Amino acid sequence: MANFAIMGFGTVGSGVAEVLRMNGAAIAEKLGEPLRLKYILDVRNLSATPYADAAVKDFAVLENDPELDVVVESIGGARVALDFTRRALLAGKHVVTSNKELVATHGKELLAIAREKNVNYLFEASVGGGIPVLRPLFQCLAGNQIQEVAGILNGTTNYILTRMVKGGVPFDEALKEAQAKGYAEQNPAADIEGLDAGRKICILSDLAWGKEVLPENISTQGISAIDLQDAAIASGAGYRIKLLGRAMKLADGRQAAFVAPHLVPESSPLASVDDVFNAIMIRGNAVGDVMFYGRGAGDLPTASAVMGDILDALAHRDRRRNLGWSQSAELIDLDAELPLHWYLRGDFTPPAGSQRLSDRAVIVGPVPGTEVRALAQRVGAQTLLPVLR
Amino acid sequence: MANFAIMGFGTVGSGVAEVLRMNGAAIAEKLGEPLRLKYILDVRNLSATPYADAAVKDFAVLENDPELDVVVESIGGARVALDFTRRALLAGKHVVTSNKELVATHGKELLAIAREKNVNYLFEASVGGGIPVLRPLFQCLAGNQIQEVAGILNGTTNYILTRMVKGGVPFDEALKEAQAKGYAEQNPAADIEGLDAGRKICILSDLAWGKEVLPENISTQGISAIDLQDAAIASGAGYRIKLLGRAMKLADGRQAAFVAPHLVPESSPLASVDDVFNAIMIRGNAVGDVMFYGRGAGDLPTASAVMGDILDALAHRDRRRNLGWSQSAELIDLDAELPLHWYLRGDFTPPAGSQRLSDRAVIVGPVPGTEVRALAQRVGAQTLLPVLR
Repeated sequence: MANFAIMGFGTVGSGVAEVLRMNGAAIAEKLGEPLRLKYILDVRNLSATPYADAAVKDFAVLENDPELDVVVESIGGARVALDFTRRALLAGKHVVTSNKELVATHGKELLAIAREKNVNYLFEASVGGGIPVLRPLFQCLAGNQIQEVAGILNGTTNYILTRMVKGGVPFDEALKEAQAKGYAEQNPAADIEGLDAGRKICILSDLAWGKEVLPENISTQGISAIDLQDAAIASGAGYRIKLLGRAMKLADGRQAAFVAPHLVPESSPLASVDDVFNAIMIRGNAVGDVMFYGRGAGDLPTASAVMGDILDALAHRDRRRNLGWSQSAELIDLDAELPLHWYLRGDFTPPAGSQRLSDRAVIVGPVPGTEVRALAQRVGAQTLLPVLR
Repeated sequence: MANFAIMGFGTVGSGVAEVLRMNGAAIAEKLGEPLRLKYILDVRNLSATPYADAAVKDFAVLENDPELDVVVESIGGARVALDFTRRALLAGKHVVTSNKELVATHGKELLAIAREKNVNYLFEASVGGGIPVLRPLFQCLAGNQIQEVAGILNGTTNYILTRMVKGGVPFDEALKEAQAKGYAEQNPAADIEGLDAGRKICILSDLAWGKEVLPENISTQGISAIDLQDAAIASGAGYRIKLLGRAMKLADGRQAAFVAPHLVPESSPLASVDDVFNAIMIRGNAVGDVMFYGRGAGDLPTASAVMGDILDALAHRDRRRNLGWSQSAELIDLDAELPLHWYLRGDFTPPAGSQRLSDRAVIVGPVPGTEVRALAQRVGAQTLLPVLR
């Protein structure tokens, strides 16, 4: 018998309980022993639910139970979740989480505690929901030097962009639709402004290169300023507008990470990733480009990833997974040092050497951000977006 | 110091040596010790290569070296490779392979020997080249009951179909192009007739449900009979023709597996997988649909997967991965019992209840194969292909 607890019984936490209910017999067979949901820690009253017997209010019950193997942290945020995760690891429990904010901001510290206590801190569900991507990155692709990671990491913004591009719906209206469908929160800032994608690209970067990149140190541009005109011009020229998180390691060992709406050529498999789906492209120096696609959010998909981590933690009970990141990455000055291709729209004479997309839009590059911004100002461009190559 | 050997120094074997040369320092850092290519077993004369010191001709050297940890089998086929794999496992060596024929036909026996000797037999490279798919399937998705696997598993046929559909090139000519580019062998039967895809869908099925499905027991239809007319009609109606390997588990626990050209709707992410790329879609009851995409062949991509397995075998030296399949799966009578949607083309009056794609083509279903074949004969249909839903 293996025992686990769920802290925070919201969408993800209750999804994990539901996956155990659906698939408990198959899970026990794979594990070689039954998996029991022993505790649910939540402020909610669960007495009228099937989980009444597991409900507890005091974290110390989990902390002090020597029979408890794994704790799922689905509280969210970086306050209570941080305190409980620290204490659970210090008490020798494996911890599995979907909490991207906590992993992105405190992962280094928590992984160090896990290393010291010889337990696992696993967080596959923190990026891409149910899509297996972190474990393939650090394990299957371990023979590669990773060169770049680029992903559609936020389903809400991808839904909105899909409606804008394919439906011709303006941003404000597409956002309202997303809210009506439950894809966007009433306060959608974290999604719309790219903060959620920023946390996820930091976690991908941390794992790809073993050095910490903090969300507060990367450039993040959201989608609220995207104009239907640009969506139409891009589509007409064989591009789609997608919000991408990108992280790369340069030849000199320095790194870059940022979030911005991009023009993505239709030949890229990222271009056809629509609606709430997510996809992450990883470029390794042996494998080339591989892509992982699926639902980036939702109770059961996210719970699928959490359950995979629970089973992996239990399979590595004695010998923890060697996983983590240490000192801070050395980030380049993104604007000054990273030459990209750029899309510009405006009532201008096309700059020399530019590729015309329409009578009012061009692609230039590769040039760094400072340079292209000066050009955009000089010619009076109304839109400036990077282009994925 | 960890030591490994390569048996068979062809495309894959020399690719593995090249990946070690490219990434040896990074690999040693991840592993925590240097990884050394101690032996290369091949009939070729390697004395003029940088690998002269490692070259051996006698398998017994590998078998009897107590310092040898991992053996890479990239011989191919199921004769010498079978003998050497058996003996390496019995000698307590971990074995890593890209040999889909051997895994599909003798995996059950070899995994049983590995279990008995407490060593790993790993074969990520046998399906999808460098694409991480087998490990995500049995590990990240372990919390799911897998319902279906559908994949573009053969790059040669996907290249040919892409040329036919997008370039309007007839089959014979597209095949010649593929041969000229080195994508297709001079005797292309194993690819063209779907045998290669058949082996791969069997391995995916074996891992998804833990029961053996042998290639000789599944229905395999290749692409040589695909007509440009059908490619054009399909494209016009929002479908692409793709050779898919499919495996599914029915509600009653019985299974199905087969290979056939399908009409794939453009809304499926499999539809936009072109050229030599592969992609595998996995449907789990918690995660929904996830897809894995990348280069399905080639020296370095395949070597990337082999190297990932070598590192995983070494990380699980003491406690082997719990992986394998046992007794035979109970397969349904595919033709009689699996209702699918079907595409029919011919000079006929559209059957009642069918969906018209053009004035000469319809989709009917869901109906089982025996029934639709009777219908096709009755109306005089010239083409009959399943449709992915």
